[in-house]
Amino acid sequence: MAKLELNEYRLFDPEPGVRKIARELYEQVKDLPIISPHGHVDPMILADNKPFPDPTELILIPDHYAHRMLYSQGVPLESLGIPSVDGTPVEKDHRKIWQIFGDHFYLFAGTPTGVWLNHEFYEVFGIREKFNGQSALRIYDQIQEKLNSPEFLPRALFKCFNIEVLSTTDGASDTLEQHKKIKESGWDGRVVPCLRPDAIVSITAPNWKPEINKLEKTVGYEISSFKNYIRAIEDRRKFFKAMGATSTDQGVYSPYTHELNEAEAEAVFQRGLKGQASEDDGNLFTAHMLMEMARMSVEDGLVMQIHPGSFRNHNQVVFKRFGADKGCDIPVATEYTNNLRALLNKYGYNPALTLIVFTLDETTYARELAPLAGHYPALRLGPAWWFHDSYQGMTRYRQMVTETAGIYNTVGFNDDTRAFPSIPARHDVSRRVDSNFLARMVTSHLIDMEEAQKLSKALAYELVKKAYKL
Amino acid sequence: MAKLELNEYRLFDPEPGVRKIARELYEQVKDLPIISPHGHVDPMILADNKPFPDPTELILIPDHYAHRMLYSQGVPLESLGIPSVDGTPVEKDHRKIWQIFGDHFYLFAGTPTGVWLNHEFYEVFGIREKFNGQSALRIYDQIQEKLNSPEFLPRALFKCFNIEVLSTTDGASDTLEQHKKIKESGWDGRVVPCLRPDAIVSITAPNWKPEINKLEKTVGYEISSFKNYIRAIEDRRKFFKAMGATSTDQGVYSPYTHELNEAEAEAVFQRGLKGQASEDDGNLFTAHMLMEMARMSVEDGLVMQIHPGSFRNHNQVVFKRFGADKGCDIPVATEYTNNLRALLNKYGYNPALTLIVFTLDETTYARELAPLAGHYPALRLGPAWWFHDSYQGMTRYRQMVTETAGIYNTVGFNDDTRAFPSIPARHDVSRRVDSNFLARMVTSHLIDMEEAQKLSKALAYELVKKAYKL
Amino acid sequence: MAKLELNEYRLFDPEPGVRKIARELYEQVKDLPIISPHGHVDPMILADNKPFPDPTELILIPDHYAHRMLYSQGVPLESLGIPSVDGTPVEKDHRKIWQIFGDHFYLFAGTPTGVWLNHEFYEVFGIREKFNGQSALRIYDQIQEKLNSPEFLPRALFKCFNIEVLSTTDGASDTLEQHKKIKESGWDGRVVPCLRPDAIVSITAPNWKPEINKLEKTVGYEISSFKNYIRAIEDRRKFFKAMGATSTDQGVYSPYTHELNEAEAEAVFQRGLKGQASEDDGNLFTAHMLMEMARMSVEDGLVMQIHPGSFRNHNQVVFKRFGADKGCDIPVATEYTNNLRALLNKYGYNPALTLIVFTLDETTYARELAPLAGHYPALRLGPAWWFHDSYQGMTRYRQMVTETAGIYNTVGFNDDTRAFPSIPARHDVSRRVDSNFLARMVTSHLIDMEEAQKLSKALAYELVKKAYKL
Repeated sequence: MAKLELNEYRLFDPEPGVRKIARELYEQVKDLPIISPHGHVDPMILADNKPFPDPTELILIPDHYAHRMLYSQGVPLESLGIPSVDGTPVEKDHRKIWQIFGDHFYLFAGTPTGVWLNHEFYEVFGIREKFNGQSALRIYDQIQEKLNSPEFLPRALFKCFNIEVLSTTDGASDTLEQHKKIKESGWDGRVVPCLRPDAIVSITAPNWKPEINKLEKTVGYEISSFKNYIRAIEDRRKFFKAMGATSTDQGVYSPYTHELNEAEAEAVFQRGLKGQASEDDGNLFTAHMLMEMARMSVEDGLVMQIHPGSFRNHNQVVFKRFGADKGCDIPVATEYTNNLRALLNKYGYNPALTLIVFTLDETTYARELAPLAGHYPALRLGPAWWFHDSYQGMTRYRQMVTETAGIYNTVGFNDDTRAFPSIPARHDVSRRVDSNFLARMVTSHLIDMEEAQKLSKALAYELVKKAYKL
Repeated sequence: MAKLELNEYRLFDPEPGVRKIARELYEQVKDLPIISPHGHVDPMILADNKPFPDPTELILIPDHYAHRMLYSQGVPLESLGIPSVDGTPVEKDHRKIWQIFGDHFYLFAGTPTGVWLNHEFYEVFGIREKFNGQSALRIYDQIQEKLNSPEFLPRALFKCFNIEVLSTTDGASDTLEQHKKIKESGWDGRVVPCLRPDAIVSITAPNWKPEINKLEKTVGYEISSFKNYIRAIEDRRKFFKAMGATSTDQGVYSPYTHELNEAEAEAVFQRGLKGQASEDDGNLFTAHMLMEMARMSVEDGLVMQIHPGSFRNHNQVVFKRFGADKGCDIPVATEYTNNLRALLNKYGYNPALTLIVFTLDETTYARELAPLAGHYPALRLGPAWWFHDSYQGMTRYRQMVTETAGIYNTVGFNDDTRAFPSIPARHDVSRRVDSNFLARMVTSHLIDMEEAQKLSKALAYELVKKAYKL
Repeated sequence: MAKLELNEYRLFDPEPGVRKIARELYEQVKDLPIISPHGHVDPMILADNKPFPDPTELILIPDHYAHRMLYSQGVPLESLGIPSVDGTPVEKDHRKIWQIFGDHFYLFAGTPTGVWLNHEFYEVFGIREKFNGQSALRIYDQIQEKLNSPEFLPRALFKCFNIEVLSTTDGASDTLEQHKKIKESGWDGRVVPCLRPDAIVSITAPNWKPEINKLEKTVGYEISSFKNYIRAIEDRRKFFKAMGATSTDQGVYSPYTHELNEAEAEAVFQRGLKGQASEDDGNLFTAHMLMEMARMSVEDGLVMQIHPGSFRNHNQVVFKRFGADKGCDIPVATEYTNNLRALLNKYGYNPALTLIVFTLDETTYARELAPLAGHYPALRLGPAWWFHDSYQGMTRYRQMVTETAGIYNTVGFNDDTRAFPSIPARHDVSRRVDSNFLARMVTSHLIDMEEAQKLSKALAYELVKKAYKL
């Protein structure tokens, strides 16, 4: 039996001087409450507060970071029990699936998923042997036993994880029933929604019209004009805000921003309703809606998030069989300097706006985003995101952003996860990597220890709280 | 009172073996004379040799690196006394402005501006307490006292900084009165001009025509044909050369090069004179003028510099109120392989040409610029520039350029500054970072100490002197 | 006389903890057999097994990495004896050329060519003094003496280098006479061909038609239709496979993939035969042929390699005088996410396909290639290639690829060289850099020593053997 250990110096630089300082800075922030302002945990988990069913259902099946790697090495998604949308039968035996996971866990060596899972096994589930083909079923049983106990109910874990606020991500038409249920339950955990308008903005998508119908149903009036459509979004924002939301979040292929005049916007919208919107219409409409969302943010104070640059559902074979979010969203090169210009020229200096921008294109950190955030008062940079939410990824982010934008134009850490029990692991990685980054600055005498301590707390807790108005 | 200290090992790797070698290499070059072949110091400062008025006027107001960061965190430029061009009243109380600067100096933690200012405070002005809201006015008074003394007159500082040559940057129509005044004063400091033709090349810019009129006035003849225009530029180059210039410097949005035939060039030029030049005309004209500038360099021996890839005056609100160079020039992705091809195919192997290329797009270091400079005899790479003139920026530059282009296809350091008293700080950072880079190579046994010492002197002094023919 | 030494810790991190582990991992793999699945050694060398003529002919003249650097610093290629294709006389005195090489060897400080040559001098030729202008001719004589001895015959070196398999690269119409000769000689060294179809795919190239004629001659039937053309390629693949090939290798400007229907493909092909193919035709034809090559790989099991993104023969003056591969191929930005989509959607999940993709655009490592390889089962990433086959280049590759794609979606090392005696040096660098990368992960506690040892062997030997089916 190979022993699982978490070295207390993990993710710190091996140089003893840096390591010592990194450890010292980390000690100061490691137990601070977790603020999770951007993620994809299903609020039903906390509304229902039912036991998690089993390890496979909890850990593997919802985590596309995990199953993409197995798929890339020839493991069929069917054999991992990923639910199909086309009726293809998939493996139902969760112990069998877990065994496959264990057999292939060596693939995650050196990856953030490997780091998170080992942390989760050790710290959350008290596992003390390494996960592999030999130990898989023993570990399955150990986790299953924990999941059956009241300490492992979702709300108990929420408290145990020391989460101060958790934001979910919710469609614009979502009635937020689960959030209501949480509120009405009297439980004091703070879970807030975040409005994501993508589905009602993608005017050329095949499901846009049904999404507009859903929106009509939610707001209770017909949406036959652009004016009405905008009114509906404003109403939804009002409702989300009343339910605790402090932000919106918009995924776009390109961050192109451009203002249409009223007549143009109406014309494009009408073509959309008739199913006649061209690709150009779609791009212009999204560009205009980014302007509109910024305007609304100025008016209602919701923080605006944009995350562009992902080619969604790249593998149509997987998409058709298993649906969206199955590990085949692939980044593309993204341009910000020209694309964000209209928005930043109109709202970038407005003190009522906080605009948080993410990227999957690291080449824009030093070239575009840090210079923009180091100038426009409204702009803040989201943390190293998605594929870059990792040891090297976060390190590169800080190295490429800090010298031009400083620390205070960034917004701390987002876990962006749908894997609820991985939240502490993810924040721990971030706190370690930032401590290490600061320690390298201290030992290179770019900053002193007093400054590092201040920056350390800002990165782990204060910046995110302030930026997201939480 | 928090003590300001400059650690003697700053910017060196914390690993003791690397640090020791870095220090040894640095010791060897730290006192070498400064060659500053590319910068924006106003020659009037050295022509007049009048005392600098006060700390705010000297240090904050001209430095867009500094006020952009304050602006990005919500400090209005008006409150910093940045002169407006539209008549907006701005703060005149320089002590009050300095206080704001002190209150926000924590924003610069880990930024090059922070490093430079601390160096400048400590080494140039003898300040021994940290700059912050508490100490701001005490430090103001200390600096003011120094500025009133003869040791702090510009020419005295020039000598004290051990500057061997300082190049300014001057418009093509500039009569170089200040340079004449310096020459005629009998002072032995070497200050040379550098011809920047941007204003007379941007054929589609609203102020192009007035700039041509200015050029006509300077050369004393009418410029009504492309031939005349070229003759005027050649005349100006001759004059600049006679005044000590060894180089030209051209800022372009894209480094596209393309040769027009005589008739085409004339036609575009005529459309420009009539205010009818299209955007395409503008791009072609710039592309052709890069070819012309290269041809002239081959003929008169002036070193040619190109620095592309900045979207100038991105924030039109700031631009309209405060004018150019107010911190809202933002880099864009830049292509060199295809764009420079025409120029390099015609002149790239001509021993009479030295072409120095800069970039704000670090992705081109290893992909395009190092391979190009590692082949074409005429091409040299300018140092890590602007936003990349920093600890991490310079380190990335060396890491991405050296393996393909070697050290000898680069040209040492440029401070590129308008902040005269920051010159020693900037060169010190460069000498430290290069020493550290070489020390890492020594301790990884890629080079030995003897080679490192040779390269170290080349990087700090010899390469720049040779490349700029100084 | 300056002593040449190879430090046993070279290319390892200076931090003693990392260095110790790196050394331990390296010791374990340094003597493993060399698998060289992708390179440009002329098979005639091993077929004839004649003594190498002299140091200049062996080491300098065929190595464009070496002479490009000399050329970039003003040394004419004529003076280096590079054979001209236009009749220009070139230096014939190989001792004189070698002297020039020695005089300029300082230019290679910190470059991979410098590292490889010092390794080759020391380990292969037993040289114990540094190569420079003083020692050049002494070293020439020492190497010449070795070359005259039987231990330095090509086949003896092949065995001495511990090469398990060496793949050459061969045109599609090549009759593989040299490979036959090797096979028939009874020598037991394994040398296999690799089919490179570029010349017969570049339908708009001036020499495409002659290349088709060559192909006709080789296959023995007329190629007047696209169907026949495809049949010819299939026949050549069959023959290459019978001769030991396990892979094909295709260089393209862009990795754009797109399937034409039969009639479209035929029409483009016919325009090609008539010399009327447009640039668009050329791009579409290449895009379609990538699809066809993938289909054939699925059918015959040959591993498919694509390496895009090089602007060939950028310097037309050099190209016209000296021909291809003379150091003026320059990388360009390359897009994979959109371009590879058609191919990956059709074949990316087919277990019969192994597609290995290379890049010269490092920005695609983390943004596009690692996410794609971390998803599609058929896709593997080729190692850090060409200009990036270096200490920093390989380190960046591992840092940017591993967290998303893991280690097992990469394929070990390729030397890609035409410089036969540099093969051990190149593999040694790779084994050192990978050992060091793993050691950094061990000392940061991302993986433990047991995992590192497993990964280390995978990187040095197992992955390449498996990926290339060798």
